[in-house]
Amino acid sequence: MSELRKDPIIGRWVIISTLRGKRPSDWGSESFRARGGFCPFCPGNEEKTPPEIMAIRTMTTEKDIPGWEIRVVPNKFPALQIEGELKPRGFGNYDMMNGIGAHEVIVETPKHSADLAELAESQILQVLQVFRDRILDLKGDSRFKYILVFKNHGMAAGASLQHSHSQLIATPIIPKRVSEELNGSKEFYGQKERCIFCDIVKQELAAGSRVVSETEQFVVVEPFAPRFPFETWILPRQHYSHYETMPATMYEGLAPVLKESLTRINLALGFPPFNFVLHSAPVQDSPLPEFHWHFEIIPKLAKVAGFEWGSGFYINPTPPEMAAEHLRAVRI
Amino acid sequence: MSELRKDPIIGRWVIISTLRGKRPSDWGSESFRARGGFCPFCPGNEEKTPPEIMAIRTMTTEKDIPGWEIRVVPNKFPALQIEGELKPRGFGNYDMMNGIGAHEVIVETPKHSADLAELAESQILQVLQVFRDRILDLKGDSRFKYILVFKNHGMAAGASLQHSHSQLIATPIIPKRVSEELNGSKEFYGQKERCIFCDIVKQELAAGSRVVSETEQFVVVEPFAPRFPFETWILPRQHYSHYETMPATMYEGLAPVLKESLTRINLALGFPPFNFVLHSAPVQDSPLPEFHWHFEIIPKLAKVAGFEWGSGFYINPTPPEMAAEHLRAVRI
Repeated sequence: MSELRKDPIIGRWVIISTLRGKRPSDWGSESFRARGGFCPFCPGNEEKTPPEIMAIRTMTTEKDIPGWEIRVVPNKFPALQIEGELKPRGFGNYDMMNGIGAHEVIVETPKHSADLAELAESQILQVLQVFRDRILDLKGDSRFKYILVFKNHGMAAGASLQHSHSQLIATPIIPKRVSEELNGSKEFYGQKERCIFCDIVKQELAAGSRVVSETEQFVVVEPFAPRFPFETWILPRQHYSHYETMPATMYEGLAPVLKESLTRINLALGFPPFNFVLHSAPVQDSPLPEFHWHFEIIPKLAKVAGFEWGSGFYINPTPPEMAAEHLRAVRI
Repeated sequence: MSELRKDPIIGRWVIISTLRGKRPSDWGSESFRARGGFCPFCPGNEEKTPPEIMAIRTMTTEKDIPGWEIRVVPNKFPALQIEGELKPRGFGNYDMMNGIGAHEVIVETPKHSADLAELAESQILQVLQVFRDRILDLKGDSRFKYILVFKNHGMAAGASLQHSHSQLIATPIIPKRVSEELNGSKEFYGQKERCIFCDIVKQELAAGSRVVSETEQFVVVEPFAPRFPFETWILPRQHYSHYETMPATMYEGLAPVLKESLTRINLALGFPPFNFVLHSAPVQDSPLPEFHWHFEIIPKLAKVAGFEWGSGFYINPTPPEMAAEHLRAVRI
């Protein structure tokens, strides 16, 4: 079983895979496994993944056979495992607990070489609804304090399989970056009785220079102080702290906005590797007046030098105003 | 001039290069410029860098000509510039100031293809003393709150030139990761009247499993909750908060320890790209009882997927105990 360990100085929790630890000789062999080879996510290969957790099927109700549109399976090499107890324990200054959690893969399409941005809006809507449904299901387990939904697209962005998929990790702790956002927005709310994200939406729409696109429900912006070139946020205009409990029409509005945003990035930057991460409020919390869910999309363009990891200090060579201008200029 | 911008939610400062912003078309062309080509850091090419700030010379005292052992020059493409005023200003929820600071390059050797780990101990000692001397010089400028010393080795670690060099950035703000360490160690000291790093040194020496090597003055460990495989810290046993004000014998003791640690990493992992970052207390502070300077070395092995940036939640496939065992086993 893996372990969750806490850095004693800054309080960051890290997942340490203690069982199948990578030895030095394992490090040379990383490659894009699916390139031209066998794909465990393609229809017909269902037995190569663990049994499915859920699927969207139109033709049949039978599990683990072709005929699905979207398929959710446990990660075959999970960072966290679902069975067991947390057993928090300490040792001198160190804190740790068992690596309990869930790690699932959402296969977004049966087509091997269709990227998320190329799927029909109706298919993207189903993916977004599956994110919601998996969160709603997993939040019933009170051991899970947070559910991270994210996508690694392309090898440079950490994907090990090419077939379009997202992932979900349910964790017994709140990830550090998320706590920072929660704390920052709580402090702001404490001072002003306003949600900082609602403020940002208003200020960005008024300024205009960092806005990529807007609809009745959503705003797509390059944030004011982005770490990475072309870092792009999708925010709902209306205040919702939790992704999973919005009215149905919000997901319907989000699907075309996500498709359009990824398409703009693809066309402006030549189909770069990218990641997105859903930032939503902790699943066990009631609706929060101070926090506002959003998507963060990060194209993988710059090499992040180690000093940026070591210092938390980022140098971004592309001003967000310039990035927004380029993304707006894309003809789609 | 570049800008320092503050994320309004979590308070992270970012350097935005507003003048020479990279356009989408600039992104495809990144390559290891020096590979087989012209090297501005080689002796004879001194006029291709800005005039030198200092150099270690044995033969001559004349500037900007060959004959140097170590040469410090301003970065030709500085992230921050030295002339001007900070002019902090706000705009709605956003804070920014001018990108004032210093950005210097320390060319560690006149030999084009000698890596830092291959240099003689006496040469490495001079590099470490140059780090100290540049910090001592720059801290006289009260605009600078922090001085970051770091090294990017190898293209995957962010180096754009192959010739062995380190860098230094003096900043008017305290980088986020550093504040987190300062705050964490201050909190610990407030509760226990002890330095957490001193505690860690003791606990690691007692446990032994994560210790890579030790000398009378230094301990090299794989930290308990490392973000990255083979992340390695060098800590002085005795408490010093500031790197730049230690007794001379400490630098003499550090040189062989740094050489040995990099050599172990090179031999265990096949000469990987790596970064190191010096974590020292803010330069304008008096000696701090709670903070303890240290080096963090991060070999670039795993691809960090975006979800780890997005969430601050890291999955490390190599337990530090296993990494320490491999590094100890290297015959040097």
